[in-house]
Amino acid sequence: MSRREPGERIALKHGAGGPAMRALIQHLFVDGLAGAAPGEHIGLRALDDGAALRIDGRYLVITTDSYVVKPRFFPGGDIGRLAICGTVNDLAVMGATEPLALTAAVVLEEGFAFAELERIRDSMREACRDAQAVIVTGDTKVMGKGEIDGIIINTAGVAFAKRVVPDAGLRPGDRIIVTGTVGDHGFAVMAARHDLKLEGELESDAAPLNGLIRDALAAGGDAISAMKDPTRGGLASALHEMAEKSGVGVLLDEQAVPVRPGVRAAAELLGIDPLHAANEGKAVIGVKPESAERVLAALQEHPLGRRAAIVGTCVEDRPGSVVLDTGFGKRLLVEPEGELLPRIC
Amino acid sequence: MSRREPGERIALKHGAGGPAMRALIQHLFVDGLAGAAPGEHIGLRALDDGAALRIDGRYLVITTDSYVVKPRFFPGGDIGRLAICGTVNDLAVMGATEPLALTAAVVLEEGFAFAELERIRDSMREACRDAQAVIVTGDTKVMGKGEIDGIIINTAGVAFAKRVVPDAGLRPGDRIIVTGTVGDHGFAVMAARHDLKLEGELESDAAPLNGLIRDALAAGGDAISAMKDPTRGGLASALHEMAEKSGVGVLLDEQAVPVRPGVRAAAELLGIDPLHAANEGKAVIGVKPESAERVLAALQEHPLGRRAAIVGTCVEDRPGSVVLDTGFGKRLLVEPEGELLPRIC
Repeated sequence: MSRREPGERIALKHGAGGPAMRALIQHLFVDGLAGAAPGEHIGLRALDDGAALRIDGRYLVITTDSYVVKPRFFPGGDIGRLAICGTVNDLAVMGATEPLALTAAVVLEEGFAFAELERIRDSMREACRDAQAVIVTGDTKVMGKGEIDGIIINTAGVAFAKRVVPDAGLRPGDRIIVTGTVGDHGFAVMAARHDLKLEGELESDAAPLNGLIRDALAAGGDAISAMKDPTRGGLASALHEMAEKSGVGVLLDEQAVPVRPGVRAAAELLGIDPLHAANEGKAVIGVKPESAERVLAALQEHPLGRRAAIVGTCVEDRPGSVVLDTGFGKRLLVEPEGELLPRIC
Repeated sequence: MSRREPGERIALKHGAGGPAMRALIQHLFVDGLAGAAPGEHIGLRALDDGAALRIDGRYLVITTDSYVVKPRFFPGGDIGRLAICGTVNDLAVMGATEPLALTAAVVLEEGFAFAELERIRDSMREACRDAQAVIVTGDTKVMGKGEIDGIIINTAGVAFAKRVVPDAGLRPGDRIIVTGTVGDHGFAVMAARHDLKLEGELESDAAPLNGLIRDALAAGGDAISAMKDPTRGGLASALHEMAEKSGVGVLLDEQAVPVRPGVRAAAELLGIDPLHAANEGKAVIGVKPESAERVLAALQEHPLGRRAAIVGTCVEDRPGSVVLDTGFGKRLLVEPEGELLPRIC
């Protein structure tokens, strides 16, 4: 961003979850906006999934996301379910697994069908029930026909945490756990958008992870060093960001990463790596080596964690890099600069 | 909404701040979503400017709004300033005048100019400084060219309040104070959008009101019975909503309502009542009669309250109605069903 030219414009890559987006946010918002919040806090500068404010001996965690997914309905979910799960999960991976309150702000295009809005509202309600979360306030705006593509939903959430789990807490030796199969959401949306007839079932994993993460924290306690949800940019972006911010290298065992057969088939057909595809119901968890098996067992006990697996190890070498062990050799896992699939969430 | 036809679609009026919007929110979101938040709270059902959660003997107030104003820059402000002031003001009129943290989520159109985004970011920073507020976390999404008209900003905010001031607290006898001239924002945006060459200066009043309201609360204490910021739908919609929810009538003295000469001239030219035009730096305050003058004096001491005035009285008659005393007679002040000006905030 420091090489920015006059007249430069926003590109799709600036919303892709990868390095271009992080550079935009760092340059434009963090350097330009970050101020001191009152008291001790983990805020904008940490570039984590949310912020945390120290209040009376605990942390108030706060997070926000806007949802623009296209199409609005896809196998396994819709924009309403995503809007609830995404924000609940951002709180959860900070260590705040009991959402206190959510907000929901809807921007609609003139002419949007009520029936569709009701369907989305019902999904939001159902996801709230799954997450034991409640929407306490909201906002409605309407834009003219053609001024917005249908609907955008923003949710924000607040929750208390005794301890904040950062995404930057990995240390050499820590094991990396992923809580289930990767790429499910990305490939489901891709197939729905392009109406691809692919073999095998593709279904989004959109789900609230707070219950699963509560179990992991109960089993692992302080041995859990870092967490992140691998949404835009997939597992590859999440690991890159965690490695970079933690100052460690990550050695990823490709064959250990769980991938559904349908996703694997679609990935081969389309030439897209499941490691780069978005997830909406998975977490990446860093754990001290001696506790990794215990946390893994706790995850596998939970319905959303049955396919959890230990997929990697943190190393001192090559801090900020992710090295992929393919079983046939090792190579650097690159993080694509561009946008794999715009409007994935 | 109970008479809704199959195939019914969203219209601009559903975002206008008036009865159609309230009916949509009531039917679709409140009846369809509202659940019990943990513990004592004032939530979605209250349809207030935000929600309040009882925590350790005080209230955590939370609010959200999306900003879609068109044009993005107008005399007196821009979408960035609006996004900060609007949320700070929603907190403040609930009685939470010290914002703890704000979130900012930006949705951008591919091709949006960086230079413009920086200008908007600078406005956000300046408004944060004015409000003594801080953005602690955010989100960035990019939509394709033509999928969104430029930029949407969502902000959410949290703040503690010892006492929540509702918008439904008016009682017969209470005096109504407006903290300054009305219609400034609505007419400034209208003139900017249609490039109207009007005599006199038209400038948005977009400003954070938390300092002003802090002074009013210090002067009035529990004698302040209700507050609201008269944004979409203007003073007319705000008073209607307060009257309806409080179960009182409001007698409004038209000649006492402060209006800038430029706004008055534009209003006459365009045939639009300043009472129906949006404000972004004004509050409506209900006060027990014996404290009204003291609160008024405190407001007038503050730079943003110099033109504050007592403009009405609450009565038992005609609960839910606003009766306008024009100086020549009395008539019911109607609240327009439709949209005066879409995308006003």
